[in-house]
Amino acid sequence: MRILSFLTNHNERLGVEFDGRIIDLNLACQAMLQRRGEPAADRLADALLPADALGFLRGGDRVLQQAQDVLSFVAERTPEERSDYAMDVKQVQRLAPIPHPGKIVCVGRNYHDHVSEMKREVPTIPVIFAKLPNTVCAPEEDVPFPRVSDQFDYEAELAVVIGRQGRYIEEHEAPDYVAGYTAFNDITVRDWQHRTPQWLQGKSFDKTCPMGPVLVTKDEIPNPNELDIKLWLNGELRQNDNTSRLIFSIPYLISFVSQIMTLEPGDIIATGTPGGVGVAMEPKGFMKVGDRVKVEIEKIGALVNGIVEG
Amino acid sequence: MRILSFLTNHNERLGVEFDGRIIDLNLACQAMLQRRGEPAADRLADALLPADALGFLRGGDRVLQQAQDVLSFVAERTPEERSDYAMDVKQVQRLAPIPHPGKIVCVGRNYHDHVSEMKREVPTIPVIFAKLPNTVCAPEEDVPFPRVSDQFDYEAELAVVIGRQGRYIEEHEAPDYVAGYTAFNDITVRDWQHRTPQWLQGKSFDKTCPMGPVLVTKDEIPNPNELDIKLWLNGELRQNDNTSRLIFSIPYLISFVSQIMTLEPGDIIATGTPGGVGVAMEPKGFMKVGDRVKVEIEKIGALVNGIVEG
Repeated sequence: MRILSFLTNHNERLGVEFDGRIIDLNLACQAMLQRRGEPAADRLADALLPADALGFLRGGDRVLQQAQDVLSFVAERTPEERSDYAMDVKQVQRLAPIPHPGKIVCVGRNYHDHVSEMKREVPTIPVIFAKLPNTVCAPEEDVPFPRVSDQFDYEAELAVVIGRQGRYIEEHEAPDYVAGYTAFNDITVRDWQHRTPQWLQGKSFDKTCPMGPVLVTKDEIPNPNELDIKLWLNGELRQNDNTSRLIFSIPYLISFVSQIMTLEPGDIIATGTPGGVGVAMEPKGFMKVGDRVKVEIEKIGALVNGIVEG
Repeated sequence: MRILSFLTNHNERLGVEFDGRIIDLNLACQAMLQRRGEPAADRLADALLPADALGFLRGGDRVLQQAQDVLSFVAERTPEERSDYAMDVKQVQRLAPIPHPGKIVCVGRNYHDHVSEMKREVPTIPVIFAKLPNTVCAPEEDVPFPRVSDQFDYEAELAVVIGRQGRYIEEHEAPDYVAGYTAFNDITVRDWQHRTPQWLQGKSFDKTCPMGPVLVTKDEIPNPNELDIKLWLNGELRQNDNTSRLIFSIPYLISFVSQIMTLEPGDIIATGTPGGVGVAMEPKGFMKVGDRVKVEIEKIGALVNGIVEG
């Protein structure tokens, strides 16, 4: 399933694109229950198929199964019958697939080409750092260019979305803790990243973590370690690799991070960026106001954002 | 005002200690409104004096003034009249003063003695890093010793709690963005902190960010740059300094962080630790299971936590 988040009347909602429109999953569930004659269908729908991403993920497989049943129900309806819960794609305000992740844990130096272009050594232990909640940015949402630097760089990454609470997860069990995957752009203010020993100040400018376009549930991506990952800046291909070349695999990373912290549904682990970042180009190829940056990952789709005056 | 958070029936509540009991501010507000004959006093109280820390802080000065009015009302009541909203201190489950901070931004290397004991250079730019939401720990709550390391170290810090949304805050305006202050223990797994270039993995073990015992509103601490800060491990004084010796002052840090990210009510900036950490001792003085660690800051009070098997 390809799940997206959007905003209606200041409320965070979950949807799936179907037949050119966006189906509000919770409202469609309500319609299904009403048709079956359920009393209090609205309350029951809130419990069975929560309207927001974190509620949805916390429900685990039960809620995912419910969403699949609801989509089967939707498929059998006529467009007119869907009018209570089907929205025009252009009318909704899109959000990041997980609009309020509890944690965003990023992995640095996890592709060989990127390690060599940055003139670093291949790590023997994953290097992790954080992005903060203010960085979350929706598909197609504008990213403000920083006022304090002109070294505004992109980093295409595959992000894993956690679906189940876990600590001390064994590598072979790690797939059970995954809800799905999304594309991720770890936008970085390079000079601020490197002017002190800790990267956070270059990694946490507002809106510098676009994610999307959708959360693709793991059943659609049986092997996340074989996905093409590409980044275009204004149509120029800048990054082009495959997740098979990750230094630390996704199950290893999940197990590793869970040695430190309890993972929760909606937490995000971004798996690192391939070679081709702007700072490693000669001359340097940073982003500027007016640019459009696109991260494209096989089986996930394209995450596009414009850069605007900050 | 000295504000604490606690849990009743799975709900996060705000209180103030008064006459040996904890006054639930929201319920006391409701009682005050009822006595004035207000209809729907419960809903009105939720709006005027939200029951949780983030709701309280988002309301700014208006809500703080409301809380002061409520405390005046409480002071004029008899103990019997207070029974609907006064709780036994021992009966409530305490939480960190801000149980769900949006961001925890920590400042490294911000006292001269700590910089020299760690054999580093005095920074010319603040070094910032993050602690993640899983680290939040209440006063008197047990901190689990990590399974993967025995280098479990303490760091006493003064933490600033943000009270108002802001970006690009000028240093002279910074005090307007402060809600108050609390004591903070930046518990650190030292070997994990230093085995990769990024500190996050040593800084984000579960429950390694005790905060409290209370949020002291800024009116009670007109000058936060003159507070004694001490840490005891099992009664042995380990850290002993004064916030006047911060390398980067609190207004400077608020202004600095706001150049990067939008600050929000409930965000926390921890201002760094003085000399005396366990790793710098000879022999090294790390914490172990069974220890009790106490951070004490003038005008704020003592934050005490036990270390238990992880």
